[in-house]
Amino acid sequence: MQDDPRIVIALGGNALQSKGSEPTAQAQLEVVRRTSERIAQISCAGYEMALVHGNGPQVGRILLASETAADVVPPMPFDVCGAMSQGYIGYHIQQCLRYALNERNRDVSVVTVATQVVVEAGDPAFQLPTKPIGPFYTEEEARRLKQEKGYTMREDAGRGWRRVVASPLPRRIVEIDAVRKLWDDTIVITCGGGGIPVVEQPDGRLTGVAAVIDKDLAAELLAEQVHADILMILTEVEKVAINWGRPDQKDLDHLSLAEAARYAKEGQFGVGSMLPKVEAAMRFVRAAPDKRAIITSLDKAIEALEGKTGTTVTFA
Amino acid sequence: MQDDPRIVIALGGNALQSKGSEPTAQAQLEVVRRTSERIAQISCAGYEMALVHGNGPQVGRILLASETAADVVPPMPFDVCGAMSQGYIGYHIQQCLRYALNERNRDVSVVTVATQVVVEAGDPAFQLPTKPIGPFYTEEEARRLKQEKGYTMREDAGRGWRRVVASPLPRRIVEIDAVRKLWDDTIVITCGGGGIPVVEQPDGRLTGVAAVIDKDLAAELLAEQVHADILMILTEVEKVAINWGRPDQKDLDHLSLAEAARYAKEGQFGVGSMLPKVEAAMRFVRAAPDKRAIITSLDKAIEALEGKTGTTVTFA
Repeated sequence: MQDDPRIVIALGGNALQSKGSEPTAQAQLEVVRRTSERIAQISCAGYEMALVHGNGPQVGRILLASETAADVVPPMPFDVCGAMSQGYIGYHIQQCLRYALNERNRDVSVVTVATQVVVEAGDPAFQLPTKPIGPFYTEEEARRLKQEKGYTMREDAGRGWRRVVASPLPRRIVEIDAVRKLWDDTIVITCGGGGIPVVEQPDGRLTGVAAVIDKDLAAELLAEQVHADILMILTEVEKVAINWGRPDQKDLDHLSLAEAARYAKEGQFGVGSMLPKVEAAMRFVRAAPDKRAIITSLDKAIEALEGKTGTTVTFA
Repeated sequence: MQDDPRIVIALGGNALQSKGSEPTAQAQLEVVRRTSERIAQISCAGYEMALVHGNGPQVGRILLASETAADVVPPMPFDVCGAMSQGYIGYHIQQCLRYALNERNRDVSVVTVATQVVVEAGDPAFQLPTKPIGPFYTEEEARRLKQEKGYTMREDAGRGWRRVVASPLPRRIVEIDAVRKLWDDTIVITCGGGGIPVVEQPDGRLTGVAAVIDKDLAAELLAEQVHADILMILTEVEKVAINWGRPDQKDLDHLSLAEAARYAKEGQFGVGSMLPKVEAAMRFVRAAPDKRAIITSLDKAIEALEGKTGTTVTFA
């Protein structure tokens, strides 16, 4: 399969958990089964691929359980919660996806690689943590956590206080060699949740930090590193839109780098929702001007690869 | 490194957590750092290797936190807890071991592969669950859990009631292809905690089951599958002994398959401690009569490989 196109797929939260359903592992497994059917179709269409998935709800629940049980079991650091979520989600995907491939007589292995992603200690994001994680606290509890553990705590829209962590840029995928080596006949699930964030110390040692790396940006870095032909970002909508939610909403078939930059500057894309996806797409085509990024929904992925739908982002 | 001897190392609990220390992730990381120094020494001595680790205390704490927080977050099934422990422990090992190797200018990657291990639904172990997992309950709670969830509950030496699960034999390592493919220049951490136990359904689908696969037996299966020259089982003692703890205790330098079988039959090896290690060693040399298994402590591993200490098990 040396000449098959290479694709890195970033799976959004809805590929793992359906809205409104029970937030249980069993319910996740059901959704992952359906997701795996779609991914298997893409594989059978002749693509080599790696998968990156989000982990927001999952790592949130791991942290919540850990903090709730703090009197009984010492709570887990956030980097470890991320590592645990990679094992949890990756296991479900590799189990379901391998079955979906076998059903189609497609002899491709599926494995999850626990993946660390290096961020810079000097990343400005650390000066302004924005990502809320874990449970809600009272103001008093929040003050105590700030004092005792040095957490940054923020009031969250009247619902209580939460810990916030930084969302620094991904700089290096530590386990990239393994992804490359497995690539040809294996679908590697890697950089789950954006990767376990680690900082490189002056002596070369890596240490985990409490941070959330955007999974679309991690997928983008991965796509660059494996020389992917396509970065595919799967989300809840079929196409990127401008004037979103207004009568003059316009769904976009195509975005050039310049257009995307202009719309982003106009504030057309939601911060924390569509903006990071468009930014990831822009980064990819800037780094690889002859390649393309596609933003679409899981259900439309095949059609989008055929050029029939989705929003394709290209350099020019 | 094509001709370097191949070794599968099974790491015991003391390689991950020191007795008496806080059961925290931070304390584990400290122990894993020291363990990684030893493993890096073995790698530098010219061995290609894969690592299998236990997960008993870790998965116990994940389950305990999950059950304690059950009113707030839906509890995790036991197979998922195992997958989470693979991510958690594997992350720590790959982080520390890569550093220890870099320090020695040894250019070997380290990755954790989330690993499913197939067990047979008809394994007689499922008729007689023996492995206690998770928290202690009152008799009334135990009765309720048995009724509501179908758990097997056992009274545990006057300390309360616990859930017990089966310990079936490992039959197939689902992700073995990835381990083989990565082998040459990568230390793969695989079959953590004995592997995530899955049963193959008639339609080929794998489904997780609540069970604990012995990690030494999983390491043995792995050693067979990668044609390892040595299966090394690291535990708390330097040598296997007979008449253990008695004035006539005898530490053994060597055990043939026949001797091991005889001593095992005599009840010389503790059930649930030394016996499964000796059994794993026996299985390995029975399957590969020209190879050897070594049982020793982490600190003596290098000397044992040089033939200076440890207990070496061979076919004849």
